[in-house]
Amino acid sequence: VKRGKSRKAARPLALLVLAAGKGTRLSTAPSAPPKVLVECLGVPLLDHVRRAVAPLGADPIVVVVGHGADAVGAWLSERWPRARAVRQEPQLGTGHAVRIAMESIPDFDGDVLVVYGDVPQLETADLERLLAAHRAKDASASLLTGVVDDPGRLGRVLRDAKGAFQRIVEAKDAGRKAKVLAVREFNTGIYAFRARPLRTALVALPRANAQGEEYATDALGRIAARGERVEAVLSADPASLLGVNTLEDLAAAYSVLRRRTLTAHLARGVAVVDPDTTVIEVDASIEAGARILPFSHVGRGCRIAAGAIVGPFARLRGGSVIGPGAEVGNFVEVKATTLEAGAKAKHLAYLGDAVVGEGANIGCGTITANFDGQRKHRTVIGARARIGSGTVLVAPVRVGEGGVTGANAVVLAGRDVPPGVTVVGVPARPVAPRKGPRTPAAATPEPPEDGP
Amino acid sequence: VKRGKSRKAARPLALLVLAAGKGTRLSTAPSAPPKVLVECLGVPLLDHVRRAVAPLGADPIVVVVGHGADAVGAWLSERWPRARAVRQEPQLGTGHAVRIAMESIPDFDGDVLVVYGDVPQLETADLERLLAAHRAKDASASLLTGVVDDPGRLGRVLRDAKGAFQRIVEAKDAGRKAKVLAVREFNTGIYAFRARPLRTALVALPRANAQGEEYATDALGRIAARGERVEAVLSADPASLLGVNTLEDLAAAYSVLRRRTLTAHLARGVAVVDPDTTVIEVDASIEAGARILPFSHVGRGCRIAAGAIVGPFARLRGGSVIGPGAEVGNFVEVKATTLEAGAKAKHLAYLGDAVVGEGANIGCGTITANFDGQRKHRTVIGARARIGSGTVLVAPVRVGEGGVTGANAVVLAGRDVPPGVTVVGVPARPVAPRKGPRTPAAATPEPPEDGP
Amino acid sequence: VKRGKSRKAARPLALLVLAAGKGTRLSTAPSAPPKVLVECLGVPLLDHVRRAVAPLGADPIVVVVGHGADAVGAWLSERWPRARAVRQEPQLGTGHAVRIAMESIPDFDGDVLVVYGDVPQLETADLERLLAAHRAKDASASLLTGVVDDPGRLGRVLRDAKGAFQRIVEAKDAGRKAKVLAVREFNTGIYAFRARPLRTALVALPRANAQGEEYATDALGRIAARGERVEAVLSADPASLLGVNTLEDLAAAYSVLRRRTLTAHLARGVAVVDPDTTVIEVDASIEAGARILPFSHVGRGCRIAAGAIVGPFARLRGGSVIGPGAEVGNFVEVKATTLEAGAKAKHLAYLGDAVVGEGANIGCGTITANFDGQRKHRTVIGARARIGSGTVLVAPVRVGEGGVTGANAVVLAGRDVPPGVTVVGVPARPVAPRKGPRTPAAATPEPPEDGP
Repeated sequence: VKRGKSRKAARPLALLVLAAGKGTRLSTAPSAPPKVLVECLGVPLLDHVRRAVAPLGADPIVVVVGHGADAVGAWLSERWPRARAVRQEPQLGTGHAVRIAMESIPDFDGDVLVVYGDVPQLETADLERLLAAHRAKDASASLLTGVVDDPGRLGRVLRDAKGAFQRIVEAKDAGRKAKVLAVREFNTGIYAFRARPLRTALVALPRANAQGEEYATDALGRIAARGERVEAVLSADPASLLGVNTLEDLAAAYSVLRRRTLTAHLARGVAVVDPDTTVIEVDASIEAGARILPFSHVGRGCRIAAGAIVGPFARLRGGSVIGPGAEVGNFVEVKATTLEAGAKAKHLAYLGDAVVGEGANIGCGTITANFDGQRKHRTVIGARARIGSGTVLVAPVRVGEGGVTGANAVVLAGRDVPPGVTVVGVPARPVAPRKGPRTPAAATPEPPEDGP
Repeated sequence: VKRGKSRKAARPLALLVLAAGKGTRLSTAPSAPPKVLVECLGVPLLDHVRRAVAPLGADPIVVVVGHGADAVGAWLSERWPRARAVRQEPQLGTGHAVRIAMESIPDFDGDVLVVYGDVPQLETADLERLLAAHRAKDASASLLTGVVDDPGRLGRVLRDAKGAFQRIVEAKDAGRKAKVLAVREFNTGIYAFRARPLRTALVALPRANAQGEEYATDALGRIAARGERVEAVLSADPASLLGVNTLEDLAAAYSVLRRRTLTAHLARGVAVVDPDTTVIEVDASIEAGARILPFSHVGRGCRIAAGAIVGPFARLRGGSVIGPGAEVGNFVEVKATTLEAGAKAKHLAYLGDAVVGEGANIGCGTITANFDGQRKHRTVIGARARIGSGTVLVAPVRVGEGGVTGANAVVLAGRDVPPGVTVVGVPARPVAPRKGPRTPAAATPEPPEDGP
Repeated sequence: VKRGKSRKAARPLALLVLAAGKGTRLSTAPSAPPKVLVECLGVPLLDHVRRAVAPLGADPIVVVVGHGADAVGAWLSERWPRARAVRQEPQLGTGHAVRIAMESIPDFDGDVLVVYGDVPQLETADLERLLAAHRAKDASASLLTGVVDDPGRLGRVLRDAKGAFQRIVEAKDAGRKAKVLAVREFNTGIYAFRARPLRTALVALPRANAQGEEYATDALGRIAARGERVEAVLSADPASLLGVNTLEDLAAAYSVLRRRTLTAHLARGVAVVDPDTTVIEVDASIEAGARILPFSHVGRGCRIAAGAIVGPFARLRGGSVIGPGAEVGNFVEVKATTLEAGAKAKHLAYLGDAVVGEGANIGCGTITANFDGQRKHRTVIGARARIGSGTVLVAPVRVGEGGVTGANAVVLAGRDVPPGVTVVGVPARPVAPRKGPRTPAAATPEPPEDGP
């Protein structure tokens, strides 16, 4: 048996992703992206699918595009270069899409997995189980199924007395047959096929239905009708198999994916204190030992090091880097900015397009004015600098190592603060170095903080 | 049958709303509003009931008031002018309240719907089903019921073997009859009556009970005892029928109404990204195509146009208007302010009593100082103006079209910024128009932003 | 019977808290606290246990410490002085810990309750029920049990046909006995013992197991094997009995404790508007009649008076005091600061180490710069003072009663604002007292606010 399994496992795997839909119910704006590029938790729906299928190591990967084909194609080139886009024009149903995809890989033989680009909750484990059963039973076709109390308009999966797959009955064809409608197992539309019987079954699929479309289900039906083996594999989590068609669906997927992402971070040692009030978008890279406090929003692509503390009420936007032991506190926004080790921005501040050096302290109310109306500019703050409360740093500008700014100072673009120098005022000018003990008259207010 | 139904539907409908309670368990403060004026998700409990009953088109509408009668009366005049307030003094029970209400409409004949002003989760569909059954069955009285595992102190609804209503047994009267207490169907106290049998049943209701009060239940009991037809109609969602008596009840109602409001916005095309972390109060008017990001709080009466983006961590207070494509970002509060098309306030800012013109950019840290200790004043910011980071605009003040303020500028009240002029400093003064390329010395820091 | 019960109730009670664990799965940082000092909702896990057991009035209280013994001991001295720390070194299992604890109270006779320092959700009621049953049945040992669908690796509780306790079977010892593994009742490890049989049972506990440890379960097993009475008492809420071993466990405990804390505040008359989006840490003291709006984070030890309003998007940190009718609004952080009656800080502000006098108004954007790089300093704002928008107050500094600061003013350390005086500018200097009606030129912008 082992030898047999091993032989089956070695069979090549092609992946077809159906991604041609428009997503009219998600947005009617002319500028709206095609459905599979709609974002959920920081990345497009299609990217969630990419992540779920990645461990399967499928090759080739064919993504069937239609609405917004150029946009999807461009996204694939950048983010999923191993996938090839195949255009379905016009869109004549799932069977049509599978046929076009198979025609684009005429020499492929092996197993063919069919999934959808608008099912972001898809779990790798379900696909692995589908493929494992498909191969172990040497099936010509296999389908992933789910069980819910009322599958509504979804196709019902009928099994014989021994539990073997018989056929799929579409809800509309069930008509008044209450017995069929009472079946709680539904067809998810996710299939594994052997390539050869699939190619045969796709020839001249009927379009004699209400939509005038070709259905992938019919291909499976033909294979079953020929008496070839068809396996139905039950998913443990049917909710993960539902496609996103409406904004409610999108919000529901967001909720599941948000929770799943947080759980993964917890399992890897990130102290997410209150998952109920925390959002971490996909792809944030957080080291074990970082702490994320309540009411925090961490954008995609952020990197947070061990010992860093974020929140509460903090927002890290895409691509920010929070170094070891660095802190971002309440009502602070960080965008495309790096805080090096031990740097702190603990209260009301905006840091954009900046680098904050090791151990520097960003006072409450600090703002990097990074945009001049045409371009964005960078702010560089040196190690151990102390930026005073309410300071505006007009980029491009540098504050040298150990530099200090006074409260409500405005450091103009290009007027760099030299290392160790203190500047104050609007606009900011250097003050004479402080001598002796600090006096009330010294215009060098320190940033508010809570000490070590 | 059809003809009969149609005739019945034409029967006039009176609505009685019992709203005399004090709400001691919601607040013990002397200044506390009467119970039905306690707010939930931005409007009084009574307003939620008003919304639920509005589609029924009842006329007359009688609201029985008692505690805080003047306040409730004033609210009715302003917000529910079709309702007439009838005073119940002293408050001697629900039967007493219904009797007083019926005496205030002595000539009314038809159906009488009795609801409560402290049941904010009430759903129109339940009332429609109650009325439909009441009329279809030509009942003299009908009651809405719910099923829960343990109805506790609520009255149990007993039915005969055929499922027809028999009678209500109060929990306290059930005594040790475990069989009665095990009944899971309870009386919600929401009734439909035919006016005539109701009037008869209300005469000299007994007060021989612990509270010495007249109960509406007893009126229904008399009608049933006379052998007239009484229908019991089961609600699909018993939680929606529970009154608000405690702060826990109020929080539970808030949670349900919050979720229901968000779902309605989603269904209408508003992209509420994360319902779990979003609050939208009742009555906010949001166009399809607007996006509401996580951790946002949108107050009652706000208007948000298509293409607008709100959040995360944004707070829109009552009556704010966010125009097409306008953006309100993190840690920004907007109050009684209009942002015209494409205007942006993306980071830490307070805009109160202001108008922000088309395409204007509000820099991070901008504050409209709208209150002089006695009165509030307006701030008007022209189209395409650019307000620099940390600017304080002391109202009343205007910034002309294309006007610019420098970082941390303080624009004093009345010192309007002419169109196209740049002002800087504390207090702000005009600078000479910039010539040639931007130099580091130019004191015209731009607001931070992320560009298009 | 009554006499008997009363006699039993009078039996002395010793409490043993096992608190020697390291908590490796919570943090691997070298500086990580020992497990029982890991915080959850503002206080260490062990403090939650302290609160749960406090009403039992046990004496003596023995806390068995091991990893981080010095830190736990120090915490006990400060926060739980009635408890005595006993060191377990090396840590050789729960039975070993109980033995060491019992050896530290050689003269104690009575009942012995054994709980764990890493079970923060523990409920007093469960412990009371365990003790009551233990005493009422005159048991030599009693255990608290829970029922869940699949107890996994937890020990199963076997009962006889009459429901009496038989024995505990460890999951690993159940082997392939599906019947035993199917038992849904598990041993929580929380026990009540009579001291004498416990001492006997602890002698030479076997270590012939995988870990080479002594198990408290075996002590209970010995007592049962001797034919002495052992009671198994079922908890109503098994989730409350689970220990915290992983960050997921910690987050789950946080969620339960957060909800429980909010419910307690609601029950006591605090208007928590939206529990779903509110965090109140343990030990905050809030009077009935205070209102906590959504998206608020109230730290441990804060005190909030009746009539105060906090939120939305407010953060009160440890030890802040919000007086009667005082208000803390959106994007405001308050730390170690007192707002006296009617004082208001309604928008974007940071108040640290400050006292704000009665009726004073803190303008939007106000910052107390309380840290000079070495030490923290205090800010004192007098009654009815009005701090202008964007003001930075560099501590130590005082604003006298009725003092006023202009927009974006910087009040330097030590440059106190005398009562009734207005200061403006960077740095702030007094202006001549205003005469006659307010003119546009007067540099005395008022703080933004919404009126009375």
